[in-house]
Amino acid sequence: MRYAADLVAIRAAAARLAGSAHRTPVLTSQNLDELFGARLFFKCENLQRVGAFKFRGAFNAIARLDDARARAGVVTHSSGNHAQAIALAARLRGIPAHIVMPVTAPRVKRAAVEAYGGRVLECEPTLASRVESAARVVADTGAVLIPPYDHPDVIAGQGTVFLELHEQVPELDVVVVPVSGGGLISGIALACAELAPQTRVVGVEPDGADDARRSKLAGERVSHPAPHSIADGLLASLGELTWPVVRDHVERIVSVSEADIVRAMRLVWTRLKLVVEPSAAVSLAALGSPDFGVVAGRRVGVILSGGNVDLDSLPW
Amino acid sequence: MRYAADLVAIRAAAARLAGSAHRTPVLTSQNLDELFGARLFFKCENLQRVGAFKFRGAFNAIARLDDARARAGVVTHSSGNHAQAIALAARLRGIPAHIVMPVTAPRVKRAAVEAYGGRVLECEPTLASRVESAARVVADTGAVLIPPYDHPDVIAGQGTVFLELHEQVPELDVVVVPVSGGGLISGIALACAELAPQTRVVGVEPDGADDARRSKLAGERVSHPAPHSIADGLLASLGELTWPVVRDHVERIVSVSEADIVRAMRLVWTRLKLVVEPSAAVSLAALGSPDFGVVAGRRVGVILSGGNVDLDSLPW
Repeated sequence: MRYAADLVAIRAAAARLAGSAHRTPVLTSQNLDELFGARLFFKCENLQRVGAFKFRGAFNAIARLDDARARAGVVTHSSGNHAQAIALAARLRGIPAHIVMPVTAPRVKRAAVEAYGGRVLECEPTLASRVESAARVVADTGAVLIPPYDHPDVIAGQGTVFLELHEQVPELDVVVVPVSGGGLISGIALACAELAPQTRVVGVEPDGADDARRSKLAGERVSHPAPHSIADGLLASLGELTWPVVRDHVERIVSVSEADIVRAMRLVWTRLKLVVEPSAAVSLAALGSPDFGVVAGRRVGVILSGGNVDLDSLPW
Repeated sequence: MRYAADLVAIRAAAARLAGSAHRTPVLTSQNLDELFGARLFFKCENLQRVGAFKFRGAFNAIARLDDARARAGVVTHSSGNHAQAIALAARLRGIPAHIVMPVTAPRVKRAAVEAYGGRVLECEPTLASRVESAARVVADTGAVLIPPYDHPDVIAGQGTVFLELHEQVPELDVVVVPVSGGGLISGIALACAELAPQTRVVGVEPDGADDARRSKLAGERVSHPAPHSIADGLLASLGELTWPVVRDHVERIVSVSEADIVRAMRLVWTRLKLVVEPSAAVSLAALGSPDFGVVAGRRVGVILSGGNVDLDSLPW
């Protein structure tokens, strides 16, 4: 196949996830519909296991390992939702999970991984140290590295979000998706291209981490020199596998300000009664951007990607 | 019929609500299941319109008015979720809603009612002044008074929560319900008595507003001398219509401490990623009470009654 995954792979992922992942609900709000003059359908991946869509890709990737490879366990480097997702998916498979985390990672993130039975290994807070530490675990233990987004099985797993949404809400005009490394939007765009080619896919990034927007404009993969945002799950750059999908199957990338992210987050909490993290709120924030295009009168799928947030330091 | 409502009335209410109220989802959490050693099914009325189950009863009561009576509008005295529910249900019917509120009511509650098109009338912050002000509106305008709980159509509307829950999750051992004036638990208990008589109904109150618990113990309706709690939606006392149902069809009433309410609220926010108000969190808090009885191994329906909370003053 031309891209990292296709509808067959995504459907196979859905079959693997059945009974282990939640089929997350789609919520609507007349209030928000009136505010935007549109019909909004919120796909609640904050209600997914581990509180984020990441469980889908992690579970699918681990389920795809044959018993011989799986036995030595899995490893990843992440301090975010992917780490928790790998830890839980590995526990469900009954294999070890080694999670490389920078020493600077918040205590609460480390505790979350350990609560799912993951073994945390500390490294220096640099990408080089993370990569090197993970490679050392692979060499020492034979564990399989499962990267957070640039992996066919991870992308296929994330694509199941759109399979469900398409069954729950047919005939969307557009689906709006947060973009970091691009695993989620690649999976969604690939499912969408085959299932509902008339539905447009729009990605959203924070202004301070808009590498995908810049890449689309440049026509080649470029990175942001110093990504920063309150949306701390959206700081990664597109990968080798996700970039071609974003290039060919994502209509456009919109970027949003920090203030707009906080406002949208608060709107979701107050109107939808959902706890979402800043990285999830960017989807709603994008609808107010002049770069988004026409919202009024449209049927819009809004992906709320996760809800892992520190209740003791809320941004308002 | 012997009580204020029966299954026929509750089914009729469900038919009226169809298409206007949300069929709210039931969420589960393996984390919380492990914590309590039980199977918990959270019925998410915080995701109902206006953010609380109150919309069901208000809509049903207003839908039941014939055109001649409805024309002059409706009136109620409340500063809580019932006020918003009446305002929205009246707007959907296209009739005026007069909401009597104490001058001391928070600005945000007044604004919420007005956003739904309700006309707010101020009164002194005493029950006498509220009742008198509402009576004056009835005399002046011919509007129909819709009380917050002690009304057959309100009780029947709230009972639709159990109709849905029973379809979504069969064979519950017990369903746990917050108790204030008793509209919600009466509707649920009456539906449950006919549909699933083997399912026990347990009510929950704050320690500081435990009139229903005291009434059950005394065998007659008694009020709390000075109700107070962070769960500000649970300060009312049982009414003439709700008390007989609680007496005959509710197995027991459990009361919970303020600290347990806050802990449970935080648990719902962090584990279920749902914004719930303290009055809703009492249901989960009750599961930890020694008075609740056996939780382990049970299938428990947990009613999360509402999610209207001030994000600027959270209790942690």
